Amino acid sequence: MYIFDFKKRVRYAETDKMGYLYYGNYPKYYEIGRVELIRSLGISYKDFEDVHKVMLPVVSMDIRYKLPAYYDEHLTIRSRVEQMPTKLISFDFEILNEELKTINTANVKLFFIDMTTNKRISAPELLVAPLKPYFEI
Amino acid sequence: MYIFDFKKRVRYAETDKMGYLYYGNYPKYYEIGRVELIRSLGISYKDFEDVHKVMLPVVSMDIRYKLPAYYDEHLTIRSRVEQMPTKLISFDFEILNEELKTINTANVKLFFIDMTTNKRISAPELLVAPLKPYFEI
Amino acid sequence: MYIFDFKKRVRYAETDKMGYLYYGNYPKYYEIGRVELIRSLGISYKDFEDVHKVMLPVVSMDIRYKLPAYYDEHLTIRSRVEQMPTKLISFDFEILNEELKTINTANVKLFFIDMTTNKRISAPELLVAPLKPYFEI
Amino acid sequence: MYIFDFKKRVRYAETDKMGYLYYGNYPKYYEIGRVELIRSLGISYKDFEDVHKVMLPVVSMDIRYKLPAYYDEHLTIRSRVEQMPTKLISFDFEILNEELKTINTANVKLFFIDMTTNKRISAPELLVAPLKPYFEI
Repeated sequence: MYIFDFKKRVRYAETDKMGYLYYGNYPKYYEIGRVELIRSLGISYKDFEDVHKVMLPVVSMDIRYKLPAYYDEHLTIRSRVEQMPTKLISFDFEILNEELKTINTANVKLFFIDMTTNKRISAPELLVAPLKPYFEI
Repeated sequence: MYIFDFKKRVRYAETDKMGYLYYGNYPKYYEIGRVELIRSLGISYKDFEDVHKVMLPVVSMDIRYKLPAYYDEHLTIRSRVEQMPTKLISFDFEILNEELKTINTANVKLFFIDMTTNKRISAPELLVAPLKPYFEI
Repeated sequence: MYIFDFKKRVRYAETDKMGYLYYGNYPKYYEIGRVELIRSLGISYKDFEDVHKVMLPVVSMDIRYKLPAYYDEHLTIRSRVEQMPTKLISFDFEILNEELKTINTANVKLFFIDMTTNKRISAPELLVAPLKPYFEI
Repeated sequence: MYIFDFKKRVRYAETDKMGYLYYGNYPKYYEIGRVELIRSLGISYKDFEDVHKVMLPVVSMDIRYKLPAYYDEHLTIRSRVEQMPTKLISFDFEILNEELKTINTANVKLFFIDMTTNKRISAPELLVAPLKPYFEI
């Protein structure tokens, strides 16, 4: 398993008239979480697309909203890869507020597209190699 | 069961560098779908909050992404209430492209908060009354 | 001069904790205004890029905020081209609320890029031709 | 004069199909810039609203777009207060890319509203006091 924490502050732009972080802004937090998890492995999602011509569209997203987040809170985006990616990569997310209460959980699955053929492929070695040490017994 | 269709065009602001409608923008489409479904029943979500002091936070959202949506496509947001709301209201969404292919499905559940007490309540009569005719045998 | 009105409703996603349409969401309204003005001339901005390989990046935007807009208001985006486009096209926008009060004005200037050479060009005939009748004496 | 630099990365959510940071996302960068400038003075914009009941709506925004910003770039938001705030506070922004080229400049003016009376007021002492040392001769 591989876990990575990244902090992000709730901005005015992201609040709604209820005074909450708008429910539709959470997917951007998960994007940030997974891109920074990947960066923490020494690779860059940008290079996936630009250099390796692989892109990762999202296939599913399941969110549970437990507590609201408020303006200016410094949230923790906890991103987790629990299984070695194969045809899909599955990320589990937990958003924690400043009191470290879990306010939101989510699972997001993405697949791999070879941008030159526009066909689905398996997880590229590029991603598999740096993850392996965290999964081997 | 009650179904309502509403059309929305994909805007430049909503696309990403993949050329797709960004995956995190779908929740805004579901917001539009459910608010317009409610309006089609002769009530306004704005009045829920301003007049009746009831707000509807989202408790869960499950999305399946089937096909991408592209810039300027005139999408159909099909919103469906399959069960009379009780403690929760459950909306099922289907997004169709111009060829009427289903590109995306989702389920979103919301609960009811009395804004004066900040406590959960059952679906207000205001919403139950206009829905009833579509569910009675 | 060519003027075109288009209506858009303020969505929950676009409000902020002040209860207003967030100040940073107005540029999306201007995007909608100019794209729909262009469509009203019988051309599509999508075709500019896809067929004619011309894109229009924004070079400047000047906004004056006069009154707030609120959730669920059905705003009018009034878009105006006052001069025939040359190296630039200049759009003037006025946003009106339901009482037809002007709540916001803006000027947005865009230039033309030939996407095959990545160089600036003059306004393409494609856009000049349908605008001409509105400017000739 | 008071200057403050804050870094922000361009996210996928913020790109458009041109591959650029969407022109309408810059105002969010200015929001981040001014809020972090204020925080660097030892005060919090959140407290302005919650504790001191003062809010700062935007009255004007003038932007010049010089160069595009791209996905994953780590941009510098340089925020500047050049004059002591009176009835208005004026912020000048400069966005710099990783090569420290200025890609964007803007001026944003905000005024002060007493949230209890909903009337305009002068810059509160709360903001004037920590800024003064940077302006006195």
